[in-house]
Amino acid sequence: MNIEIINTGSELMLGRVLNTHQQWLCRQLADLGYVVTRQVAVADTADDIEQAVREALGRADFIVTTGGLGPTSDDITRDRIAALLGRKLTEDPAIVAHVESFFTKRKRTMPASTRVQAMVPDGAIVLHNAHGTAPGLALHISPNPFRPDGQPSWLVMLPGPPRELRPMFTDQVAPLLKEKLPLEAAFVCRTLRTVGIGESYLEERIAGPLKPLVDAGLELGYCAHTGAVDVRFVARGCGADADVAEAARIVYELAGEHIFGEGDAELEQVVLRKLEEKQQTLVLAESCTGGFIANRLTNVPGASAVFLAGLVTYSNGAKKQFLGVHADTLHDHGAVSEAVAREMAEGARKRTGVDYALAVTGIAGPGGGSPEKPVGTVFIALASASGTKVINPVNRYDRETFKYVTTTQALELLRRELTQKAVPA
Amino acid sequence: MNIEIINTGSELMLGRVLNTHQQWLCRQLADLGYVVTRQVAVADTADDIEQAVREALGRADFIVTTGGLGPTSDDITRDRIAALLGRKLTEDPAIVAHVESFFTKRKRTMPASTRVQAMVPDGAIVLHNAHGTAPGLALHISPNPFRPDGQPSWLVMLPGPPRELRPMFTDQVAPLLKEKLPLEAAFVCRTLRTVGIGESYLEERIAGPLKPLVDAGLELGYCAHTGAVDVRFVARGCGADADVAEAARIVYELAGEHIFGEGDAELEQVVLRKLEEKQQTLVLAESCTGGFIANRLTNVPGASAVFLAGLVTYSNGAKKQFLGVHADTLHDHGAVSEAVAREMAEGARKRTGVDYALAVTGIAGPGGGSPEKPVGTVFIALASASGTKVINPVNRYDRETFKYVTTTQALELLRRELTQKAVPA
Repeated sequence: MNIEIINTGSELMLGRVLNTHQQWLCRQLADLGYVVTRQVAVADTADDIEQAVREALGRADFIVTTGGLGPTSDDITRDRIAALLGRKLTEDPAIVAHVESFFTKRKRTMPASTRVQAMVPDGAIVLHNAHGTAPGLALHISPNPFRPDGQPSWLVMLPGPPRELRPMFTDQVAPLLKEKLPLEAAFVCRTLRTVGIGESYLEERIAGPLKPLVDAGLELGYCAHTGAVDVRFVARGCGADADVAEAARIVYELAGEHIFGEGDAELEQVVLRKLEEKQQTLVLAESCTGGFIANRLTNVPGASAVFLAGLVTYSNGAKKQFLGVHADTLHDHGAVSEAVAREMAEGARKRTGVDYALAVTGIAGPGGGSPEKPVGTVFIALASASGTKVINPVNRYDRETFKYVTTTQALELLRRELTQKAVPA
Repeated sequence: MNIEIINTGSELMLGRVLNTHQQWLCRQLADLGYVVTRQVAVADTADDIEQAVREALGRADFIVTTGGLGPTSDDITRDRIAALLGRKLTEDPAIVAHVESFFTKRKRTMPASTRVQAMVPDGAIVLHNAHGTAPGLALHISPNPFRPDGQPSWLVMLPGPPRELRPMFTDQVAPLLKEKLPLEAAFVCRTLRTVGIGESYLEERIAGPLKPLVDAGLELGYCAHTGAVDVRFVARGCGADADVAEAARIVYELAGEHIFGEGDAELEQVVLRKLEEKQQTLVLAESCTGGFIANRLTNVPGASAVFLAGLVTYSNGAKKQFLGVHADTLHDHGAVSEAVAREMAEGARKRTGVDYALAVTGIAGPGGGSPEKPVGTVFIALASASGTKVINPVNRYDRETFKYVTTTQALELLRRELTQKAVPA
């Protein structure tokens, strides 16, 4: 099966915005068992859109376009595709009513220009837009004059804003695709998310034991993100469920301590949910990560139930004032040292009375390094009722990557502590 | 002129990684006066790559491919393009020496597989890779058998890792492009970055006064980001410099208070540089933004000179303990209130002795709203020697967007304070 994506928008071609639609749509489709064969981006000019759509119709079974359905003069996707296919556009009263009510609810008058969004090409399925005004449109092109064999194609037009496109795809396009172009065989996809182990080391551990399954047809993929590696299994046909389950069992057995979750799990979510389950509380004391751990944790709804405070003690004065780090310790060991990390964590825990205090001090760079403590040096301390643990990684990256990798190591230190305790001794 | 980008990589088609090359390359080229007409992504399989390159050669004057130059079995871009063009591959001793020294410096033995990266197609210009092993390659295809008129094309292959691709493009590809395919007329591009004013309101203010310049050929573009809007001018031909300068003068006159910088300036950089210039210090007291302001500020190298501490006081207890907010104030007004924001900022400033303390309290959602204080309610307070200012925006977004927009408003409040003071009364 051949699936193509066409992203329209001059702002893409000028590099003013990042094309997040490509990754999101490709990922959603892959997880459903459909692989995108080609993605194209063109400016929102008539000829470019028409040429891209014409070429895709000549090859693909299922085509998704994004953008160009709105009310302004550069929104021309609907019109050009209708013209290319010779389909008449007619105003749909139900869409007019939806657009009117959208403005009424917001106490705004409906600009006349927005009415164009209610125009529907002959034979199109209208995809309701619960988060905006422009509906999506799905067209079945059968026979398809652009394919040599006349084979039919589906063409789905989606609005550009992600918060409109994403629920429309999930709720309406994915079911349509599964109904109209069902996979020929069972499809199972499972992703295990690991942290704290490099891609090649992980492969060394698991590739051998997985080989019989891979030889029998299991697809095994690695995807290295900053500070984390995903392992993805795909199996098709009968026995797919059992093969994927067996593969996952092997990886849990050989590298289970590194697996923090599956699918779209995020490390900060996992940590927060574990604290919630145990009804335990957390305080952070961050120096070199500059509030990034707090920022990641507070992206998770409900964080306030367990995360009480984060002290971004960037200066020595702040370390003394808010955490009770001793001037002598700072003087004797330096701000980036095991002793200071330990005092930061223990001070934060003692002063707030929480279950866990996580502290980080290090040298993010580009300046501030020395021969004994080069840029990238980090001390991470975790204080709890069972004492204080300190780890000392060296993270040689650019400043922002350094901060991200370090926050991940800190969250992972806490996750392991929480996971250990969950297992009865 | 017709420029196309071809991104290769199965991980792109599976949605496992975000295609940042598209935006980066399109932006670089646009700022040099070259507009990309089409971008295509395909899997790293031989047929897909060959078809995409063949099509691009049939249309484009300049083609950039990314990825597929490395040492593993799925790196096939160089081989397939050489085969398509009938160019013989020969090992280049200088590249072999570079790859060997790359491994020697890292005290690792050179895997035999990496030697393939030294293979160069006949007639190719080798683009040195200062940050990795695989060089880039530039080919002049003249005559071009894939274009109906035989017009020549340039085809440039770049390695996939961004930290290898980006300097190679800037240092070697951009000069090559400017030399081989010079713009026919002078080209000037200038971007003004604004914050705190919506795209349509900004347009209302400036579009009329800019109309004579636009009618005379100036290109005017708006690009709305979350919480910020860029205004971009492009002019070509003689008088381009003067036209762009006049357009910028008009926008500074009509909306100058909203302009925080130009080009790639970031608001957090601008704020930090202004504090540095004035040798003044800052402390943050964040509740609903959860450390995001601190995180943005500490992404800027040198932040530690002016940013002393950030207190992420997520709980009421932390607000009392670390900022001295009164229990009565919390009880009478609630944690999300002007009174609490004021006490947070004033308490942080008093306790640390800094010049500026910026405090934020609000309801990020999805839970926690009430009829009087709906989700999105925010109070931002700035305490300084001249007193305390409080603003009260309502930011109705998803949780992460809420946090980002709120951090931008807080930084902008501080920027305006710093900018006002810079002007002698």
